[in-house]
Amino acid sequence: MKLKIQYIDIDLDVLIISSKDASKLEILASSIIKLTSGEKNLSGRVIKTSQVVIPGVIGIPSSMTGIFAPDEIVDVVSIHSPENKRIIDKFLKSNMSLSEEEIKSLVTGISNDSLTPIQTTAFMLYHHFKQVDIKEVEMLAKSFADSGNRITWKSPAYDKHSIGGVPGNKVSLLIVPILAAAGLLTPKTSTKAITSASGTVDTMGVLAEVDFTPDEVMEIANKTKGIIISGEKLGIAPTIDKVITNAGYPLGLDPPSLILAGVISKKIAMGIDFMVLDIPVGKGTKFVESDGRVFGRTFVDLAHAVGISAKCGITYGDVPVGHTIGPALEAREGLSTLIDPSSGPNSLIEKSTSLAGLVIELAGIANRGQGQSVADDILRSGKAYKKMKEIIEAQGGDPNIKPDDIELGSYTMDIVAPANGWVIEIKNRALTQIARASGAPEHPGAGIHLLTKKESVKKGELVARIYAHSEHALEEVRAQVAKLQPIVIEGLLLGTIS
Amino acid sequence: MKLKIQYIDIDLDVLIISSKDASKLEILASSIIKLTSGEKNLSGRVIKTSQVVIPGVIGIPSSMTGIFAPDEIVDVVSIHSPENKRIIDKFLKSNMSLSEEEIKSLVTGISNDSLTPIQTTAFMLYHHFKQVDIKEVEMLAKSFADSGNRITWKSPAYDKHSIGGVPGNKVSLLIVPILAAAGLLTPKTSTKAITSASGTVDTMGVLAEVDFTPDEVMEIANKTKGIIISGEKLGIAPTIDKVITNAGYPLGLDPPSLILAGVISKKIAMGIDFMVLDIPVGKGTKFVESDGRVFGRTFVDLAHAVGISAKCGITYGDVPVGHTIGPALEAREGLSTLIDPSSGPNSLIEKSTSLAGLVIELAGIANRGQGQSVADDILRSGKAYKKMKEIIEAQGGDPNIKPDDIELGSYTMDIVAPANGWVIEIKNRALTQIARASGAPEHPGAGIHLLTKKESVKKGELVARIYAHSEHALEEVRAQVAKLQPIVIEGLLLGTIS
Repeated sequence: MKLKIQYIDIDLDVLIISSKDASKLEILASSIIKLTSGEKNLSGRVIKTSQVVIPGVIGIPSSMTGIFAPDEIVDVVSIHSPENKRIIDKFLKSNMSLSEEEIKSLVTGISNDSLTPIQTTAFMLYHHFKQVDIKEVEMLAKSFADSGNRITWKSPAYDKHSIGGVPGNKVSLLIVPILAAAGLLTPKTSTKAITSASGTVDTMGVLAEVDFTPDEVMEIANKTKGIIISGEKLGIAPTIDKVITNAGYPLGLDPPSLILAGVISKKIAMGIDFMVLDIPVGKGTKFVESDGRVFGRTFVDLAHAVGISAKCGITYGDVPVGHTIGPALEAREGLSTLIDPSSGPNSLIEKSTSLAGLVIELAGIANRGQGQSVADDILRSGKAYKKMKEIIEAQGGDPNIKPDDIELGSYTMDIVAPANGWVIEIKNRALTQIARASGAPEHPGAGIHLLTKKESVKKGELVARIYAHSEHALEEVRAQVAKLQPIVIEGLLLGTIS
Repeated sequence: MKLKIQYIDIDLDVLIISSKDASKLEILASSIIKLTSGEKNLSGRVIKTSQVVIPGVIGIPSSMTGIFAPDEIVDVVSIHSPENKRIIDKFLKSNMSLSEEEIKSLVTGISNDSLTPIQTTAFMLYHHFKQVDIKEVEMLAKSFADSGNRITWKSPAYDKHSIGGVPGNKVSLLIVPILAAAGLLTPKTSTKAITSASGTVDTMGVLAEVDFTPDEVMEIANKTKGIIISGEKLGIAPTIDKVITNAGYPLGLDPPSLILAGVISKKIAMGIDFMVLDIPVGKGTKFVESDGRVFGRTFVDLAHAVGISAKCGITYGDVPVGHTIGPALEAREGLSTLIDPSSGPNSLIEKSTSLAGLVIELAGIANRGQGQSVADDILRSGKAYKKMKEIIEAQGGDPNIKPDDIELGSYTMDIVAPANGWVIEIKNRALTQIARASGAPEHPGAGIHLLTKKESVKKGELVARIYAHSEHALEEVRAQVAKLQPIVIEGLLLGTIS
């Protein structure tokens, strides 16, 4: 369709078309259109109006002045792809498997916004309602990997990845330096917390920079062997993040096939050869144990199919790892444990060394069953802390930072035991919600310090301290604590009979 | 959150908020927010920006000047309902049935846009992937009915409704006057064609007005007994239309539970007491015969549950009804058949009188099996035509209009038989697509006239004539005809062996 350019004083990055022309072009809500005139072209999200422009005219924000002349006639097409409409039809209605080309087309469509939000949501729900189809997930993972930057290494690259769900899971802060100290190239990427209180990136962000270009990452990793950085800014498999942000998060959905495709695609893009996947199971995690095992089996098969040698560790996820939740608190705890492992919490050390041990076994440095003791030796010898200092420095942080240097939120609330008794339940989801209410991860100093975990307590004893970034956040924390009862203490007297 | 009003020169009906404030308010894409200051309030769709307004400020289009003072501080809340998020969670993740209150809350959310398009899509896909739950559909239908205007009558009201899928299905143009002539109050509402080439409203729109207020409808119907009007402007059960427009149509989905809830809700809102549902089955329709029968059984049960006495007619839908597709062509054919039934196509007369007969039996005017002959008598006696003239006049049309007065598109293309043979297939979907390419239903004169249906033809004989509204549309028609081969003619010589 030929339309005439009209510049419009609107500070929005959209193209404006009359409803009449929009219906002729079969434009749906938030389609992408492409304007062409000779060699010049411009694509963008379109909005319909029956007021701002008349039929025959296409409105462009004044900020885009210079691309076309005012009143210039341009050719307008909707790049809302009919091919993708057909593909979505195929999987929604006929329930037929998609070909590699079709999957690529959808991923490209999500990537360049030519898939509408409604179509992306359909894609998400299809995966939610259907069984995992391994072949389809493999093709999906490859397409996601191809949608962004890819990094290749001269030597084999190792990785440990944790499926979310357990608060306080700061194990990467120990595992990466252990593996790097063992001589294994470990380029660990992670994402910021979306629903949790602190992602590895948020925690590491307290100690060093986490955003680097692919070239910087290769330079640092080739020197230190280990890095702990954000994958987002690095541009690896960005399309899966888009699916999750646009459709998964708003609906609170995280279908297994997309978790699988997401993890594998990031590892392909990062050039990972060997990896261990940590699958926490239990209350408040993504899986019950039996489902976690099935997921792990599928993951290993998939990894092999794309040339990654993988193992899964099913881990206990009923309670937080270590005693802290929130970026600064977790960075403190991770750093303390590296400096003086004998003072660190058992759960953190045990989990970190066992997962690191599995990677060490994959690398052939230790025999099966011997990896954990190698990892433990590296941690307790101080080599892991030394390596962490190198990594922090290479990532632009202060290598000599001490745990106490790390600032915490200045508004606090204490939870004390109401009676003598035992801590019989620590609710993961409630703790995450409260830590987020306190301001984590946006405010690094916010979070929860658990002073005890599943132990007997005396009346009045401090069970947890919550750090918030403002009085207002603290008020919200108080309300949430009262409502969610995150720590359940059962009195010694369990009941009376009379 | 407290924000300061800033008027902005944007001709769009949106409220503009900084991305920072948006994330604090947990605003998702296209959420609704509500601004309040004392007694004054304003709700609207919100867009996020990192450019147009700074944090602490809420931008309002200048067109809304007068509601708040510039720089006035208002309280801003997201009315993206957390309750609805919980309900969607419940049906997506736990697959649990919803309560009446929960269904009402969702329908209200769709109605006032506090459900995001993504959530509405999830609602659509839930129904697409799940089995029909009769109790849930019943509650849904009642909620949809409550979401708009409701009409009540002093005497019992009758209706015939056809499930879409068959092109040329102009039976309402005969059935309504037949029933009204039989003394039955028949307030027939319909919708404009969305995916078909002509809805009853589009066809009737050629002969008379179709948009009336509830009061006008009651006045007309109490006089003529029959009306054939649009339900859209009447505001009956508008929320189901919104679901279909916003999520069903973009994805090409039409789940049985929403078809059921949609039809029943419109009938509840229109105060219908007795109805016949026409379920066409076969190629290119919504159902194969066995599914159509199951759907019909469910429909009857549902109708009874909401107090409507219903029957279903399973009808043959492999080929178009009558010989014409498109508003003007269908209006011509319907009118001709009313004026001189002996000249009308058998398929149209047979289908119309059999469905009208079922309604007549429901009304107790004829015994079981006798209804069709009563309907046929009314049609052939000329009483139906006389009634149709009354209806056309009451709806503001010319009662003396003759079929030839109705204008057709002036650009035509003929399809002729390439050889002696038989018409062995007439493809419903292809015909609909070609009729739409010709300009129907937007351009009433556009459409297809089938000169023959399943008969033997001679080489060069005219098989169909297509009317388009422009040379450009005709070009598109030519391309579609070549690609879709809508009419398959098999030669007398079926093959040779040598």
